[in-house]
Amino acid sequence: MNNEPDDLLIHGESSISIPELNRPRVVIIGGGFGGIELAKNLIHKDIQVVMFDRYNYHTFQPLLYQVATAGLDPSAIAGPLRKIFEGKKGFFFRLGRVKNINPEKNTIETSIGDLSYDFLVIACGTKTNYFGNDKLAQLVFPMKQLPQALDLRTHILQNIEKALLVKDRDEQQSLIDFVVVGGGPTGVEVAGALGELKLHVLPNDHPELDFRQMDIHLIEGTGRLLNGMSEQAGAKAYDYLKDFGVNVWLNTTVKDYDGREVTLSNGKKILSRTVVWAAGVTGSLIDGLSKDCIVRGNRIKVDESNKVVGYENIFALGDIAAMISDETPNGHPQVAPVAMQQGHLLAKNLRNLILKRKKEFKGFKYHDKGSMATVGRNRAVVDLPFIKFQGFFAWFVWLFVHLMSIVGFRNRIMILLSWIWNYFTYDRATRLILKPFAREKNTES
Amino acid sequence: MNNEPDDLLIHGESSISIPELNRPRVVIIGGGFGGIELAKNLIHKDIQVVMFDRYNYHTFQPLLYQVATAGLDPSAIAGPLRKIFEGKKGFFFRLGRVKNINPEKNTIETSIGDLSYDFLVIACGTKTNYFGNDKLAQLVFPMKQLPQALDLRTHILQNIEKALLVKDRDEQQSLIDFVVVGGGPTGVEVAGALGELKLHVLPNDHPELDFRQMDIHLIEGTGRLLNGMSEQAGAKAYDYLKDFGVNVWLNTTVKDYDGREVTLSNGKKILSRTVVWAAGVTGSLIDGLSKDCIVRGNRIKVDESNKVVGYENIFALGDIAAMISDETPNGHPQVAPVAMQQGHLLAKNLRNLILKRKKEFKGFKYHDKGSMATVGRNRAVVDLPFIKFQGFFAWFVWLFVHLMSIVGFRNRIMILLSWIWNYFTYDRATRLILKPFAREKNTES
Repeated sequence: MNNEPDDLLIHGESSISIPELNRPRVVIIGGGFGGIELAKNLIHKDIQVVMFDRYNYHTFQPLLYQVATAGLDPSAIAGPLRKIFEGKKGFFFRLGRVKNINPEKNTIETSIGDLSYDFLVIACGTKTNYFGNDKLAQLVFPMKQLPQALDLRTHILQNIEKALLVKDRDEQQSLIDFVVVGGGPTGVEVAGALGELKLHVLPNDHPELDFRQMDIHLIEGTGRLLNGMSEQAGAKAYDYLKDFGVNVWLNTTVKDYDGREVTLSNGKKILSRTVVWAAGVTGSLIDGLSKDCIVRGNRIKVDESNKVVGYENIFALGDIAAMISDETPNGHPQVAPVAMQQGHLLAKNLRNLILKRKKEFKGFKYHDKGSMATVGRNRAVVDLPFIKFQGFFAWFVWLFVHLMSIVGFRNRIMILLSWIWNYFTYDRATRLILKPFAREKNTES
Repeated sequence: MNNEPDDLLIHGESSISIPELNRPRVVIIGGGFGGIELAKNLIHKDIQVVMFDRYNYHTFQPLLYQVATAGLDPSAIAGPLRKIFEGKKGFFFRLGRVKNINPEKNTIETSIGDLSYDFLVIACGTKTNYFGNDKLAQLVFPMKQLPQALDLRTHILQNIEKALLVKDRDEQQSLIDFVVVGGGPTGVEVAGALGELKLHVLPNDHPELDFRQMDIHLIEGTGRLLNGMSEQAGAKAYDYLKDFGVNVWLNTTVKDYDGREVTLSNGKKILSRTVVWAAGVTGSLIDGLSKDCIVRGNRIKVDESNKVVGYENIFALGDIAAMISDETPNGHPQVAPVAMQQGHLLAKNLRNLILKRKKEFKGFKYHDKGSMATVGRNRAVVDLPFIKFQGFFAWFVWLFVHLMSIVGFRNRIMILLSWIWNYFTYDRATRLILKPFAREKNTES
């Protein structure tokens, strides 16, 4: 070991049983795209890396909507975090929620105890934004985490079963109609997937119901869809959704929802028991940082090396970080490639610092490789730096890129097979209403 | 239609919205092995078949233990019931729990309303038997349903995460030690699968824990394992489990359990937070039948054509039926092949009756094709009518037979691939701690 404790502030006592290795400890909060990329490139015999996450798996969020619409198994888009780092010495995973940061003491407070750090990296991403509407928050379905996607799946399938039983027309309609709020990639993809269920899957399962009566509404506050992408992509996505029979409401917001009736800003009322909320995100902040470093969208202001403004050994990256410069006055887009590229660079910088190769941090520069979204079967929109295209080939590119991006060979195989199966059979094998047993042992049978 | 309503007792009014087709209605309670086989062979344009189940999928119970031990995805062993009967006219599925039978009125009372029947078939199988011990029922993990298997999986994985955090030796031991109660196929297979996790999977995930300290106990009340099989099979299973390091306690029962400490009948105490209960089953009885037809194990006494004793148009088959004769003084073994063969024959008999081909019912005769159980990697015991064998080839036969028995081509492919993956990589890709989101929206992040 080359490091003198004094100069790299070797951490103090901890109440969580992480081995004391007498080498600098980097604590990473969050096992998302950024956290994983960082840890992978940071691991070294002279660095202790400790990762915290509330889940024991990494979620491949771009395909979450396919779990919600019964197209994929949860395990297909989840990678156990311990597996990802299997055999990596110096890496420690802890399942727990980080509740507080104490920058004076260089410690964090977590649901499983306190831990000291030498360097802290906040990579906990964003959570769903309900814009302060608590009532809404209780009634709608967000789409950020795997358990949420499974809840939505169960809810959709259960409501269709219920629709068979009710005689009241309005009530039946409310059970088979869907409202998706937010015209970004998630909203567009959910609406498209629901359109596919309506056209190709549900009628086979439920010959007793007339699914031509099933309405899908997509609500978007601005004048176009897919705001992060080109005008062309947004317009084409609009056309595709229309072809699928999705009602797209632009320049419209949700004014109220009581669990049954949605009231739109234009006065229209829609009966629906299922409102999918993909209208926006806000940073998953952790208490303890100075208010001076929190900016719009609950993001943490960082310098060009992802160092949190005002701190020396605290970093933030990915969706929760806002690297504000002349080029990026609102920070970078909150997408996986930014997080991964920042994680990669920060790992390099931290290694150089800890291993005393270089003191200066290299600044971050985002390489935008493009973006894409799919709209149901056979259709997608793709914006690459030098070309934009839509349609069947775009859909094929979308499939390929997503398949190649997912962590792990097994996930890749399982997803590929599920897709082939779903495509050719119009089947959705995972349409299981799977509620937890919740230990109600006595009623079990 | 050839049927006169008067003679086939065409059902009356119903409060559940099942189309009135003016043809005899057969209501099947339960979508297990027996119910499915019955429905498949009964469906006919002049018969209305209505199936009730609490779940919207059929569970392939023989592989449930692999879901519980993170070897398989739930969707791999579940078949959506609507899918199984897709395109079959005259078949109706309803998701609901049957609460009561009213034989005088020919109706059933369910969680979703009342329904009349012309013929009723009870095929709802068995539930876990806690022998009246309510305290135990709250603390142990049964293994009959998919949500239970997922609960157990979550519990095992969570406890291993917890074991990393506690410093007290006893406490740590209680988190990584397992007690399996019941030396039948389920108990033996669970113990074997836990043995595999201990040897091959968990040490890679958790280098910080010493899994040589993990103890697995199998408790069996009689003097041997696998009572339904040959002596030879039981003895070999015992040897295999011993090789795996499983502690097998024969002639021993559980006297008490407080959630932490198991007290055995021989006085020994074992610390364990996880007790898997596979010690026995009891019929999932539905109220309303005369007490005269209920026999030992809460089974329903039926004649050789599966007609419930004392009723003319009520039948029972599979695990819940006890066809008592000189040859089978305790009824048939409670295994899937009996249920399937009974379902097959009953379908034939009912069709003949309803379609007026034949009034006489053909009696049931069980063709025992053998039984088998697997004990971890590479090892199984197989009893066929004319030969008994154990070891690697038996394991291969076990794999093949189970793979071919599962409903659906997709399930077969998914299971085969998972098995190949698990076998060669020693990985368990589905080790996700996946708890329901339970709509705690405000704490979401």
